[in-house]
Amino acid sequence: MHAYRSHTCADLSLENKGDTVRLSGWVHRVRDHGGVLFLDLRDHYGITQVICDPDSPAFAEMEKVRAEWCVRIDGTVKARDESLVNPKLPTGEIEVYARDIEVLGSAAELPLQVFGEQEYPEETRLRYRYLDLRREKMQKNMALRSDVVTSIRKRMWDQNFREFQTPIITASSPEGARDFLVPSRLHPGKFYALPQAPQQFKQLLMVSGFDKYFQIAPCFRDEDPRADRSPTDFYQLDMEMSFVTQQDVFDTIQPVIAGIFQEFGGGKKVDQTWEQISYKDAALWYGSDKPDLRNPIKMQVVSDHFRDSGFAIFAKLLEQDGTEIRAIPAPKGGSRKFCDRMNAFAQKEGLPGMGYIFWRDQGNGMEAAGPLAKNIGPERTEAIRQQLDLGVGDAAFFLGGKPKSFEAVAGRARNVIGEELNLTDKERFAFAWIVDFPIYERDEETGKIDFEHNPFSMPQGGMEALQGDPLKVLGYQYDLACNGYELVSGAIRNHKPEIMFKAFEIAGYGEDEVRKRFGGMVNAFQYGAPPHGGCAAGIDRIVMLLAEEQNIREVILFPMNQRAEDLMMNAPSEPTSDQLMELGLRVIPQE
Amino acid sequence: MHAYRSHTCADLSLENKGDTVRLSGWVHRVRDHGGVLFLDLRDHYGITQVICDPDSPAFAEMEKVRAEWCVRIDGTVKARDESLVNPKLPTGEIEVYARDIEVLGSAAELPLQVFGEQEYPEETRLRYRYLDLRREKMQKNMALRSDVVTSIRKRMWDQNFREFQTPIITASSPEGARDFLVPSRLHPGKFYALPQAPQQFKQLLMVSGFDKYFQIAPCFRDEDPRADRSPTDFYQLDMEMSFVTQQDVFDTIQPVIAGIFQEFGGGKKVDQTWEQISYKDAALWYGSDKPDLRNPIKMQVVSDHFRDSGFAIFAKLLEQDGTEIRAIPAPKGGSRKFCDRMNAFAQKEGLPGMGYIFWRDQGNGMEAAGPLAKNIGPERTEAIRQQLDLGVGDAAFFLGGKPKSFEAVAGRARNVIGEELNLTDKERFAFAWIVDFPIYERDEETGKIDFEHNPFSMPQGGMEALQGDPLKVLGYQYDLACNGYELVSGAIRNHKPEIMFKAFEIAGYGEDEVRKRFGGMVNAFQYGAPPHGGCAAGIDRIVMLLAEEQNIREVILFPMNQRAEDLMMNAPSEPTSDQLMELGLRVIPQE
Repeated sequence: MHAYRSHTCADLSLENKGDTVRLSGWVHRVRDHGGVLFLDLRDHYGITQVICDPDSPAFAEMEKVRAEWCVRIDGTVKARDESLVNPKLPTGEIEVYARDIEVLGSAAELPLQVFGEQEYPEETRLRYRYLDLRREKMQKNMALRSDVVTSIRKRMWDQNFREFQTPIITASSPEGARDFLVPSRLHPGKFYALPQAPQQFKQLLMVSGFDKYFQIAPCFRDEDPRADRSPTDFYQLDMEMSFVTQQDVFDTIQPVIAGIFQEFGGGKKVDQTWEQISYKDAALWYGSDKPDLRNPIKMQVVSDHFRDSGFAIFAKLLEQDGTEIRAIPAPKGGSRKFCDRMNAFAQKEGLPGMGYIFWRDQGNGMEAAGPLAKNIGPERTEAIRQQLDLGVGDAAFFLGGKPKSFEAVAGRARNVIGEELNLTDKERFAFAWIVDFPIYERDEETGKIDFEHNPFSMPQGGMEALQGDPLKVLGYQYDLACNGYELVSGAIRNHKPEIMFKAFEIAGYGEDEVRKRFGGMVNAFQYGAPPHGGCAAGIDRIVMLLAEEQNIREVILFPMNQRAEDLMMNAPSEPTSDQLMELGLRVIPQE
Repeated sequence: MHAYRSHTCADLSLENKGDTVRLSGWVHRVRDHGGVLFLDLRDHYGITQVICDPDSPAFAEMEKVRAEWCVRIDGTVKARDESLVNPKLPTGEIEVYARDIEVLGSAAELPLQVFGEQEYPEETRLRYRYLDLRREKMQKNMALRSDVVTSIRKRMWDQNFREFQTPIITASSPEGARDFLVPSRLHPGKFYALPQAPQQFKQLLMVSGFDKYFQIAPCFRDEDPRADRSPTDFYQLDMEMSFVTQQDVFDTIQPVIAGIFQEFGGGKKVDQTWEQISYKDAALWYGSDKPDLRNPIKMQVVSDHFRDSGFAIFAKLLEQDGTEIRAIPAPKGGSRKFCDRMNAFAQKEGLPGMGYIFWRDQGNGMEAAGPLAKNIGPERTEAIRQQLDLGVGDAAFFLGGKPKSFEAVAGRARNVIGEELNLTDKERFAFAWIVDFPIYERDEETGKIDFEHNPFSMPQGGMEALQGDPLKVLGYQYDLACNGYELVSGAIRNHKPEIMFKAFEIAGYGEDEVRKRFGGMVNAFQYGAPPHGGCAAGIDRIVMLLAEEQNIREVILFPMNQRAEDLMMNAPSEPTSDQLMELGLRVIPQE
């Protein structure tokens, strides 16, 4: 017989009745029922009930074991008493009568129980991650993550993509975040950087003629930790293709993502047709470039109804250039209590408040209520109601000013309204491509033109477009929004050196600067660069959505804590003076 | 029609005759045959011949294009003249008559030609890697690497392993090499380290109950570059299993490795039965713990034949403790010229030389020649011949002393003999497990006992064995040798804290030191650690063997040069003073 097991703890059934078996695993829990010991033995695959009574030669040893001891047990498979059958357990019809036990690894007093649902502070869970990971939910989350990545790979291979590994210790590849630096021992005083993304390398692969690339790529950004962001390394499905248009990228990645959500989404509805929404429309309709489309609310411009109206605040606002009044329709939100709560929400978010109208029927037919309705009068109120297609029991909220000043709050209000009124369909994964991102934006404070998103995207209209108003230039650049998250981001790249230099010039970067920062890629583009494009999808975020977790640390095996420390492994830690000497570095004493 | 292509450059055949097609790719070469232009258009998939004559509206533009320009071509598929059919090319029966051409990316003068077999200095190849990678051999090597990794993954999944990603920015995990350090911004003066291997994490995964883990894992060692070693990051197939013996690990990984060599080995013979050779026997028989078993030569101890013999040097040597005389049989090596050459080889390797005997027949029956034969006389010579099973036309070489002093040279001599005498079967992948490594070795200079290999291996005989002579303790530790390379290395781990502390104590490390260096793992072992073991296989080396390359940089997309620099990306480079400030570091000026 094998030294440790003849079966896993999920294998045995009535078919094995009478067999002599060997199992290894952890003591999940142990109970003493009137001198008979019941021990749930757990391994990665399942749980098997082991029993032992004083007639067994193993009894004395069995009495000693405690929760989470790792043991080997030899015994005989028996049918359980009918009353003791556990239909929830695959092994629930049998139990193993123990005749021998070997302690493979005993356990000190546990800082964290594996059995049961007790909650522990995150610091405890991370410090004893190896115990935390034994818990059922964590085993499931990690298996899910692994299975999702496996499925992604298979789906990419099926589309004739090859996976290539790009360098990890390399040059800075600025993506807007801070680099992690790695001091060079052979070149003291010089540093490598860990890639924020394999952006330059994947583009170089296209210039190298590889046509279709993907990678489950580790990415490194020295950012301050957040619930949905790992403070150190995280993984992306990174892909790139040559000789493609934006639509080709969509047609390639959509079946992969949709397939993953179908496969692992637990039966929730997965959108099969993905709308393409312009960045501009997304801002207007949803107040976000990553809208949650499970929520059917679509905002509208209602400026005309307020122009020169009796509602002086809006009427005045509209006299200024670039201002608008927008409405958030709230079907079924037609109560003063709800409207006041939403008004308070807007105030908490830093706005003066949200005007509202709601429609009710107090026995005299439909009536529009709320101070706003009174101010603008019944005709305008009715016109608004018709535009928004609302009726009795519904409400609408109004925000005004320059869109940039209230759009984000409007977006969040839309989310809250959707949640509170149960409009948001929780049993759905709702996808849309957000397209036509502007290449540039103007910094409100400095007035300076800078890249809005990614400086490597091809401007729609090419060189010609760059010769007009830069703020009007749109890029072949896109995000995939899913349930309020940005799941994928990508672009058709700017592969023409002259257009690239012009694009950077507009943002204030001279040719020298561009060559210095992106030299590897820019040089390569001089030697017959193909048109190419691609995208990257956040693995951690996909798994979070599928596992219904809010915290990224629930889907990472050994995450850092919120101070970017690993308490289990003791990282970061002080280097030895020899190490610093070899690297030619000195630590500046902190005050 | 698609913006860039209706077909790839490998797609078209006579079936497409008459079709209007669109192709995109690179100008592989262009020839002018009496006013008719012949252009080989190349993409990742293949090459298609494009022709153009002055009747075509594209002719003027076609005349401008040069090698490696990236172009789109519209044209009509024609059958080639029978005399011009190229049977070597999948598209060799057709050509495309060009009617339109668009330059997608022009090329500056090329520092490196893609077409042809011209050789370039490595620095040029790495600086313009994107051109170098377009060459046929590099495209093949990189595709091979990607396909090997894909196949490994599939084979591991088929055995119910899950792939898990372990942290990259983490704590030092000493494996005998130098760590790459990463300064922490949030904790100035402290450093993370990049893992030399996921050793501790994979063991933690076993303690966490995951049963079967693998990862195509990036590993980081700050070592001085060599031909067969990447100076920065490299990849391993890393795997670990719980509740297993050494034989289980062999049974799991052998089909994976054998399968890969079968699949990608180009028809070479792949050993199906892998011998297990003890470390001690490997040293004796092959002078190496990674023997090349394609070479049938097996060395033997022949001390007895020289004891008290007329060959004073060996006879005297044997009077000292721990000395031996070993013979390298060299079938078909029986010529004075060859024997002298090998003797010179040993001298170049720092030994006084290698004695030899060779057997010839100059018409008077078999005769043993060489000074050694004369010194020891015919009887001993004949006894040696019989022991070594040699005959006319064969030779044997002799080395003496303490085995440690000549074993390595003997091993290299064996390799040279095998090569020169064509004994080494180049059409074979020869595998053997090297087992029973000693846990400890004595430092010849200091006399100190230290770990021979990996401090985490379980000693055979457990705690009891550690209470005897440490130099006699063997470990459940193993390497896989293939064609003279160490392809895999692994062990059954020491999962019992008390045995681990004892093992470290013997090597001079106190409990505090062990807790400091391997605290994460050692703490975990207190909470019910399962017996576990595994191994790691070098991906780069596997691909090198399959691609028949001698230099690791031929199987890596974007490798560093031998000074650990990336000239294409400009790494390492000087940090900005802001970056240093944020990290709390100062660079010590170098003299």
